[in-house]
Amino acid sequence: MLDPHFFILERLHEFASSVFQHFGVPVQDAEQAADILVLSDLRGIDSHGIARLRSYVSMLSVGRINPQPNITIVRESLSTATVDADNGLGLVVGPKANSMAMDKADHVGTGWVAVKNTNHFGIAGWYVLEALKRDMIGWAMTNTTRIVTPLWGAERMLGTNPIAIAFPGFEEPPIVIDMATPAAAFGKIEMAIRTDNSIPAGWAIDRNGHPTTDPKTMTDGGAILPLGTDRDHGGHKGYCLGAMVDLLCGPLSGANWGPFTPPFTLEHAEPSRRVGQGIGHFFGAMKIEAFIDSTEFKHQIDDWIRTFRATKPAPGTTGPLIPGDPERLAEAERRQTGIPLVPAVVEDLRFVAKQTGVPFE
Amino acid sequence: MLDPHFFILERLHEFASSVFQHFGVPVQDAEQAADILVLSDLRGIDSHGIARLRSYVSMLSVGRINPQPNITIVRESLSTATVDADNGLGLVVGPKANSMAMDKADHVGTGWVAVKNTNHFGIAGWYVLEALKRDMIGWAMTNTTRIVTPLWGAERMLGTNPIAIAFPGFEEPPIVIDMATPAAAFGKIEMAIRTDNSIPAGWAIDRNGHPTTDPKTMTDGGAILPLGTDRDHGGHKGYCLGAMVDLLCGPLSGANWGPFTPPFTLEHAEPSRRVGQGIGHFFGAMKIEAFIDSTEFKHQIDDWIRTFRATKPAPGTTGPLIPGDPERLAEAERRQTGIPLVPAVVEDLRFVAKQTGVPFE
Repeated sequence: MLDPHFFILERLHEFASSVFQHFGVPVQDAEQAADILVLSDLRGIDSHGIARLRSYVSMLSVGRINPQPNITIVRESLSTATVDADNGLGLVVGPKANSMAMDKADHVGTGWVAVKNTNHFGIAGWYVLEALKRDMIGWAMTNTTRIVTPLWGAERMLGTNPIAIAFPGFEEPPIVIDMATPAAAFGKIEMAIRTDNSIPAGWAIDRNGHPTTDPKTMTDGGAILPLGTDRDHGGHKGYCLGAMVDLLCGPLSGANWGPFTPPFTLEHAEPSRRVGQGIGHFFGAMKIEAFIDSTEFKHQIDDWIRTFRATKPAPGTTGPLIPGDPERLAEAERRQTGIPLVPAVVEDLRFVAKQTGVPFE
Repeated sequence: MLDPHFFILERLHEFASSVFQHFGVPVQDAEQAADILVLSDLRGIDSHGIARLRSYVSMLSVGRINPQPNITIVRESLSTATVDADNGLGLVVGPKANSMAMDKADHVGTGWVAVKNTNHFGIAGWYVLEALKRDMIGWAMTNTTRIVTPLWGAERMLGTNPIAIAFPGFEEPPIVIDMATPAAAFGKIEMAIRTDNSIPAGWAIDRNGHPTTDPKTMTDGGAILPLGTDRDHGGHKGYCLGAMVDLLCGPLSGANWGPFTPPFTLEHAEPSRRVGQGIGHFFGAMKIEAFIDSTEFKHQIDDWIRTFRATKPAPGTTGPLIPGDPERLAEAERRQTGIPLVPAVVEDLRFVAKQTGVPFE
């Protein structure tokens, strides 16, 4: 430990891996799962990193996630597969399905894999960074527990349903898009509650569907609004994006969708009915060489990045970022400082340590 | 003509086709181009229908669009192709490239075609409706002339860069997503100018990058904001979406991208440099049977549609729509009433009639 609030990355990795192994996850799978968790912390996406370990543990400890899934391909073509993840950890089955997509892309140019009967897979960005290692454009999506209302709705019907895609540069770092589809992240609403602040107009509604700036009325049966917020500002587009991810991950794979996606923690109620199995992911890989010379492509990406960095800045800003910049800068910093964890997360990890007997500090 | 302002669909189709033929477009291609134009009018997307005929004509009349392109495949794999459209009409080469994607999907499960050296292709929705006829999920994107600023930018760097995708129902009509990636459509800003109204905050900036509600300051060197508008409301996500479409259509195909996409009309200045050929499209087709039984899938889509229609409505609304509803309702109405055209468009068509000798009224 570098400081009371900063933790050494490798130490968090070892802890997460050992905890997964405690619940019967095979060593290699546990290491893989820990890789994804700590990459999230490293890249500054604190909500999807080690902070989630306690909820994974709660699900594993009551048998709600299968630590040793028998992953099967239920349908396949040269460029596609549908995978039954046997209720495994998304952090374990996600990488395998993503690899299948890349292997198919190696053979026929692209590969697309829909996964059902799975669970939370960590940050979507991890999967598309893998594709870059193989000179491919990676795609990753997942549907998630309901928390977002459609435009003109007054209840939670969709998850935060992220979409990620990445493009490699030659000299420049890659362009990495990794975005959820609501107007705001749930983590920001939780943070406003903890700090006793209001939230900006346009993020959320209360349980009756009225716009609210009180974060507690959102968590108390309200919902997050889709990207675009209202009709005038394109809220129907944010709803469309959330729907697109839900439809590719749910009905296409045979997973649950929309309001019927199962929760990620034991605290949340089960959905009123089941329309599939588990949640769903959707992975894609496109071999760049199947479209264009990959060196030529990367030089164009470099040019794109430099061109967009040189955009005239809006007053009071330093100008546009390139998608992936914030995560890359966080990673550079945290490789030096270690991973900062807030006290609540440290408490959670101590709880997990006590429960499993895996030493934490 | 049913009324001074309403036009018979078939008549507009015949006019458009004859005008294209006047400029040397082969009959079958001219009919295809007219199909796409009038479907846009029929579905209520007035900005992309017959209203654009005059700008196509202006480009054809000075040889800026090739009426008889020699479309070639420059690179190919079992699930991909890259097409050089030889500077043809997007309305002609788009459908051919889209068909290639579907043919590949027939063989290997999915097909993905990047097109360079092309021009405006009409509504993205037309292409994905074609895929539905073959039991496929269609994807269509195109990059377009710059008019949108990245978040924290103060100039036009990206086009409206639409993305479309559609999913077939069994008894229910399909879910058809067809959305541009800025906060608002340029057509709405033009309409505000014509009616001497202001525009909502959050749509646009002026030439210095300051937020504006005066539509004239947007058209006078300003820019449209990305979906999400500002950092607090996810403007970085709208920027990411516009960038994603630009990167798939531009660098991947070898077309121009970002601020270097050529304009669609003669009135706009040429970009400062060329980084590829023409604009670019990106088409995808996924055979549903390559992932899941297509009847089972369509029953799930029906269930999804009915579930989302039954969402508790927000106060003052009738509840969420299903993506594609507005266009479907417009189509049902306009099949009865004919196509309403505003006087400015009628004037444009009369001008085209005079220029080409093709009778209009």
